[in-house]
Amino acid sequence: MADEITIKDIARRCGVGVSTVSRAMNNRSDISKKTREKVLRVIEETGFVPNNSARNLKRIGSQNIAILIKGISNPFFTDMINILEAEIKKTEFVMTLHRVASRENEVDVALELVKEKRLQGIIFLGGEFSHSEEKLNMLGVPFVFSTAGAEPEFLNEKNYSSISVDDVAESCKIVNYLIGNGHQRIAILAAQEEDTSVGNLRLKGYKKALKQHDIPVDEDLICSLHAGEEVEQFSMENGYVVTKELLARGTKFTALYAISDTLAIGAMRALHEQGIRIPEDVSVAGYDGLPLGDYVTPRLTTLRQPTGLMARETASLLFGILSGQKNHQHLVYPGELIIRESTRAIR
Amino acid sequence: MADEITIKDIARRCGVGVSTVSRAMNNRSDISKKTREKVLRVIEETGFVPNNSARNLKRIGSQNIAILIKGISNPFFTDMINILEAEIKKTEFVMTLHRVASRENEVDVALELVKEKRLQGIIFLGGEFSHSEEKLNMLGVPFVFSTAGAEPEFLNEKNYSSISVDDVAESCKIVNYLIGNGHQRIAILAAQEEDTSVGNLRLKGYKKALKQHDIPVDEDLICSLHAGEEVEQFSMENGYVVTKELLARGTKFTALYAISDTLAIGAMRALHEQGIRIPEDVSVAGYDGLPLGDYVTPRLTTLRQPTGLMARETASLLFGILSGQKNHQHLVYPGELIIRESTRAIR
Repeated sequence: MADEITIKDIARRCGVGVSTVSRAMNNRSDISKKTREKVLRVIEETGFVPNNSARNLKRIGSQNIAILIKGISNPFFTDMINILEAEIKKTEFVMTLHRVASRENEVDVALELVKEKRLQGIIFLGGEFSHSEEKLNMLGVPFVFSTAGAEPEFLNEKNYSSISVDDVAESCKIVNYLIGNGHQRIAILAAQEEDTSVGNLRLKGYKKALKQHDIPVDEDLICSLHAGEEVEQFSMENGYVVTKELLARGTKFTALYAISDTLAIGAMRALHEQGIRIPEDVSVAGYDGLPLGDYVTPRLTTLRQPTGLMARETASLLFGILSGQKNHQHLVYPGELIIRESTRAIR
Repeated sequence: MADEITIKDIARRCGVGVSTVSRAMNNRSDISKKTREKVLRVIEETGFVPNNSARNLKRIGSQNIAILIKGISNPFFTDMINILEAEIKKTEFVMTLHRVASRENEVDVALELVKEKRLQGIIFLGGEFSHSEEKLNMLGVPFVFSTAGAEPEFLNEKNYSSISVDDVAESCKIVNYLIGNGHQRIAILAAQEEDTSVGNLRLKGYKKALKQHDIPVDEDLICSLHAGEEVEQFSMENGYVVTKELLARGTKFTALYAISDTLAIGAMRALHEQGIRIPEDVSVAGYDGLPLGDYVTPRLTTLRQPTGLMARETASLLFGILSGQKNHQHLVYPGELIIRESTRAIR
């Protein structure tokens, strides 16, 4: 299906020229944000693969692309894996999947894997955005960081490519939406302070939004997720447990923002058990845009990440490098605020 | 963790002798069903690996175990994959993950994969329970069918091992529970007639339960799932769409049984949108026992499959064969009816 769509089709559907589509894809500053988002949305909808370098790869017998996932039980990655698998299947590579435990560092896991001589490339899903340069240099095969969060310094790296949304900005967007609806006491289920993954960036976005509106940060409203082998960080269980703790503290709040949809669903259950109505008593917002959020009751307000597009581009970037492309890229995609039933305006 | 638990610990926890634990594990008929279920539950809870053949494997350099999954977007498989990955990691094998599209036959996909010389074994998750013997013989590497459903003829196979629950019996169990609560008009979201996977077996279980209570089968209550590339068979979306169609037909029913939890959650959304209250107006039951079912509102009544145990045993069986064990086994595990908030007794 994706094979049949050309850049011309995208241009036609958007009512723009081919060069505009190209500019949008290359993240150039000489087109409007609105046009860029429109083009990317159409690309996402059609499943168009902008740079299908996979086809240019020499057939070199089956060799492995390793995918390392931190947080494998988060359904956010299910979609990503599904699409990556389909993209990799178009080549003669096989995909090997590796779970990174929450206490493990994914680059250390990768260093073990590269001893396997047939490993040709690595895709990191989730995990941290900050790594030792020395270790990265030791990997010796091309790699792409995907959905691991983006910090400015990270985006300057010349040794590898990355795909992300701007977690600070997107998180700020959803908190601004809550504030715009009259919420001032907004609890957040977020990563611990020392965290160096998207969890921390989303917490930064929360604080940034509060600051923009001169709302003081109340540490009582910041609920740190449990992390460890017993409970997966971005799980419904964690959202449930942490929200129970928040309720037990008796801290007042009118909105709760969880930094993943899975956490938000766990939080909704905890609120429900306490007889707290959503959104009448408390508004709840998530992050990720899982299909699931559209089926729970009430339907979940969230920040959708363009998973399909991000997964296809991740594969495309890696295959680009494997087929000799020299310039590493750091692509940052816009998220989309999806307002559903779990949030409401208050006086 | 699992390494530290011995068969003696299991025996002590169950208050039985070691030989009883052994009999329970080997599916022997000389212990009571109740004792067997208790032992298996403790094994499941402790993460004990009954026959950790992985340790006996020679270290033979990294070679692949392929896992072929039909229905990869069903969160039921997330847990299974997670545990399989952990088990395989204990060896020097690497795990490659392959999605089987809904129109593909998994054995055909496997036949392509075995051309890869370093492939040492195959685990099939999901998919069909009936395959051409000729094709299976062509595979040339050991394989295990896991959670693909069990039919008596299938269980006689001497060429490969399998792990399953008795889908007919377990499905019958949950429908019997609904009937016992006064429901006679029970809609089912099930596979199409020609289906040869668990979907069909669970439909058989439904019909069997009705027959046991002399309730005639009403074809209007049997809702066939859509199948194809557009919509994943066991998805929330499919449950939603098929329930919408059922409601549009105007057929009356007091209970709805969906053959997976994901389908049930989609069905709950469709009912909710129509203003139908669960369980006051309609009772809803699922199948699988996903963690998710414990978080949705109302909490979902379901039939839990012992995922952890099944995944660990799947790995153990395959490693057993790889380390020279000759006898193939077909292990059938009991499911567990979990009654939560989405079902109620009616007059």
